Parts: sequence; structure tokens; C-alpha cells
Amino acid sequence: VVLAVSAASPDLAQEQPAGPPPTMASVLAAAKASDWRPLDLTRLLVVTIPSGQVTIELAPSFAPRHVKNALELVRARYFDGLAILRAQDNYVVQWGDPRAGEAEARSLGRAASKLEAELDRTSVDLALTPLPDGDVYAPEVGFSEGFPVGRDPSSRRAWLLHCYGMVGAGRDVASDSGSGAELYVVIGHAPRHLDRNVTLLGRVVAGIEHLSALPRGTGDLGFYEDEAQRTPLVSVRLASDLPPDQRPRLEALRTDTETFRSLIEARRFRREEWFLDPAGHVEVCNVPLPVRRME
Amino acid sequence: VVLAVSAASPDLAQEQPAGPPPTMASVLAAAKASDWRPLDLTRLLVVTIPSGQVTIELAPSFAPRHVKNALELVRARYFDGLAILRAQDNYVVQWGDPRAGEAEARSLGRAASKLEAELDRTSVDLALTPLPDGDVYAPEVGFSEGFPVGRDPSSRRAWLLHCYGMVGAGRDVASDSGSGAELYVVIGHAPRHLDRNVTLLGRVVAGIEHLSALPRGTGDLGFYEDEAQRTPLVSVRLASDLPPDQRPRLEALRTDTETFRSLIEARRFRREEWFLDPAGHVEVCNVPLPVRRME
Repeated sequence: VVLAVSAASPDLAQEQPAGPPPTMASVLAAAKASDWRPLDLTRLLVVTIPSGQVTIELAPSFAPRHVKNALELVRARYFDGLAILRAQDNYVVQWGDPRAGEAEARSLGRAASKLEAELDRTSVDLALTPLPDGDVYAPEVGFSEGFPVGRDPSSRRAWLLHCYGMVGAGRDVASDSGSGAELYVVIGHAPRHLDRNVTLLGRVVAGIEHLSALPRGTGDLGFYEDEAQRTPLVSVRLASDLPPDQRPRLEALRTDTETFRSLIEARRFRREEWFLDPAGHVEVCNVPLPVRRME
Repeated sequence: VVLAVSAASPDLAQEQPAGPPPTMASVLAAAKASDWRPLDLTRLLVVTIPSGQVTIELAPSFAPRHVKNALELVRARYFDGLAILRAQDNYVVQWGDPRAGEAEARSLGRAASKLEAELDRTSVDLALTPLPDGDVYAPEVGFSEGFPVGRDPSSRRAWLLHCYGMVGAGRDVASDSGSGAELYVVIGHAPRHLDRNVTLLGRVVAGIEHLSALPRGTGDLGFYEDEAQRTPLVSVRLASDLPPDQRPRLEALRTDTETFRSLIEARRFRREEWFLDPAGHVEVCNVPLPVRRME
């Protein structure tokens, strides 16, 4: 029950925290060092394209087989010299071997060419920082280990969500036809209908603007019609394999902290001076996952 | 009540329509000529930048004052030679006068420099094709006159939604500080917290890839730090003012038709062969608004 109270009510005034209501800026300014976690170099990919570097945090706890296979490919330098084949507006950018499926395709070496899709996992041992405003697609949504997650309490399953910047393993019609040799990145409005249809295995934590600003392909599904339009992959490296001075030094706000819960509230109720209506709700893909350079 | 029925049940088979369940492709293939409406040239803007043309359908029934003012500016060729000042990743592209607010600012001529924000309108006389899956931000959502719309049955108000491609009038902190002289286009995940905070006045119907692929600005809010990085606005014209052979000949699927309702169903239940799980829900900004060239 919500009661109308006078702004002068002394009881109400006592219950309110001192100072202005939090904004994202004030929440981050008040964050403690322990609210941040250094990104784990053993599951961080550095994708170099001519315009810059894109850094991807992998999610082995959601897609262990795909992460293992992708790392096998990365360490064999499978991706070096391949290309971005597709940029479909308001949807995805995708890279891989332009000759995949042909006789001239590059060898996958010891990596598997097909993997059973990893669409969800048990939620029993998964801590979730929940969002309170519901979701159109999933019974429950929130954040776990820095990733946007859906959860079904009846089946006790959890899965990664197709928010902006999430990275997935392209597949053909067969559910086991993906391997991590073709990867896509969401660069538009969250295509949540893809959730639990294709394996997500990570998310971009830095440099997505190098992908989202690529010229869109003019063929079906945004494929580039002319080979010259493709963007080459200069290299894809595991961060821990890079020389120390070339490793990204990034840290992310932990999503299991009181600070992150405050950030969610600051995004639910927008208190920045510009806002006329604070909204009062937030959709899971509109909650930012703060990442910054370590000092 | 949902009953489990054998696939061999003759009664059920009789009730099912012939052929496979609809997909978006099959719905569009079956659309009648009368399901499409030619876009009204008297509220269609053609924005020319060096890489191509962007076409915008204005929404005078939602933002009459801002549309009138923007058209005043367009017809006075106010925008010609101005520039895209800002491209913020996963958010907006915005154009206007780089000298706005300074002594050297371009004159707005007979147009107003400030307008009261047009945040919502009555829903009493507004037909809505509703979506059935709920929404995180609005009590009801759907489509009206080709636009994504929110509606509140208790207040009987309706408003445009910040989906991908929607066009708004930038403003400062004061609610009446926008005029249409600065316009922004959503190029990322729908920033729905902006709904009812700022005036939306139209949407891009063609050529958004010329905006979404622009290099992101590196300053605060995605502003370009170096003047040379700005993209010039070659011209902005009302389509009906163009010579007949230069007018866009586009038509949009009417959103008040049975065909559009079928398209919504085809997007709620994804029947394309690739899908493992048809999703069964759709979020308003994931429903496409089909636009095609007229024959």
C-alpha cells in the first residue's frame, strides 16, 4: 500500500538516506576496490582487426565445451587471417573461414568441427542477482558472474541472454553444427528469440565499437557480397598468451555486490537532472556491466 | 486449459489451418496489395549524407508541434551543410548545428527555438494493434499508424517508444528546450527509459545502415572530438518537395491489418527450420515494420 505523505513529514524524512538519490555516476564513485574483479586473462580473448582491438570475456560455466573448443582454435592460431564475413544491421557481426565447408577450408586441427549445443545449465548452484521488473521472454532474469542470465524456477535451468555485445557460436540448421569456429556478436536490439536456440559463450567487454561501426553487408543476412568488403582478422589471442605488456588490464564491477544492486536501482529510477520521469523499471539488457582499465 | 492431444487426433487436425505454420516470409508472401500503404510524401524526410540517403517517416499525430517546426526548418534548408555531431555506441546518432547556442549559430528563421515537449497524447481515439506478451516499461504496447506505441488504460494516454530507428528531438535539461533543430536516431538496444522523457517525432524507414555504421565519437556522450570526424549533412528535404523522379517510392505494411497480426504471431512463434525453441513471446521492439520499394 502506498500512502501519500507530505514532503514535510518528519518520520519519512528520517527514513530517507542522506543526500540525493543515487545515480549510476554516484554509485560508481562510491564503489569500493573489492567491488571490482580483474578480468581473468585465461578466459579473455583479444581480437585484433585493422581498426583496433575487441576484448571478449568467455563464459566457461555456461558453455564449457564451446569455450574449450574455441580456445583450442585460438591457440592453434586458426582465426589469424580469416575475416568478418557478415554485418547485418540491428543484428549481428560474424566471423569465420570464408571457405568453411569447401575443400579449401582451413583445418580445425585438434578442435571438434561439431559440438552439441549448450543452450542452458542447471540453476541450482548458480547465484543470481535478480531484476524485479519482469521480462518478456524469461520467467526470471538477472546477472550471474558478470553475465545477463535467464532462469526458470520450475525446470531449475539458467541460460545466457542475447543482449547487446553477447558472443555466440554460429550454427547451421542441425543443433550440433556449431563449434566456435564461427562466432557472432550482437550489435543491435537484443534478439532474445535466439535465447536457448544457439550457444552463447561470452560477451564483448571492450572495443565493441570496432565491430558495431563496420559497414553493413548488402547480401542476404548481411553477408558481404564482395570479398574486398570483408574485414580481416589480424589475430585472435588468449590474453594470458600475450607478452605481459600487451595484456589488457581490465576490471569489471562484480554483479554479486551491494554496489551492483545499487546500480540496478539507479538504472530503474533515473535521478539524473535531465529526466522528467524516472521510468521506475529496467529491462535486463539496459543494465550496463561496468568495465574499466585497472590503475 | 491446455489439453494434451495425440497428433493423430482427427478433430484437432480439422481445426488446424492447412500447410505449415506461418513464418514472416510466408506472411509477407501472402499479403494483399491493400495490406500496404504508400508512404506519405508530405511527412517523409530524405536526409542525404555522403554515404547515402536516410528516409524518415514523421509522426504528426504524436508530435504535431515538433513535426511542424522540423518541417519549417527543412523547407528553409536549415539543415543543409550542418553535421552529425555525435555517435554514441549502442545508443544514438545526433545531428544539428555545431555552433548552436553560440553567437555564430545558424538562424532558425521562422521556426521556434523552444517547444513544449510532446511526451504523450490521448489514447481515446487511437486504434492500437496490441501485443500480448507484456512489456517491462509500459502497461500495454502495440502498433498504431506504423509506429511502436505504449498505452496506459488508466490515464488513457499513449506514446511512441524508443525502439531501434526511432527519431527524437534532442533537448537540454529544461523540458521545453527541444525544437527539432537537433534530431537523434536510436542505433542500439532500445533505450526505453527515455520514453516520455523526450519528444519522439518519427522513425527511419530506409537507410539506417548509413547512420548505424558511422564511426563512434570518442568524446563524452559520443561527441566527435575533432571537427573533421563529423559527417556533413549534404541536404535534408521533404520528399514532396523533391523532383518527381527523386522521390522515394516506398510502401509500408499497414499495422492495422490481419496480415500484420499474422506477422506478430509469426514473430512470437518462430517456425523457421533453424529454430529449436519457437520462443513463444515477442518484445515490441523486436517486431519488424516491413517497408519495401513500390513496383
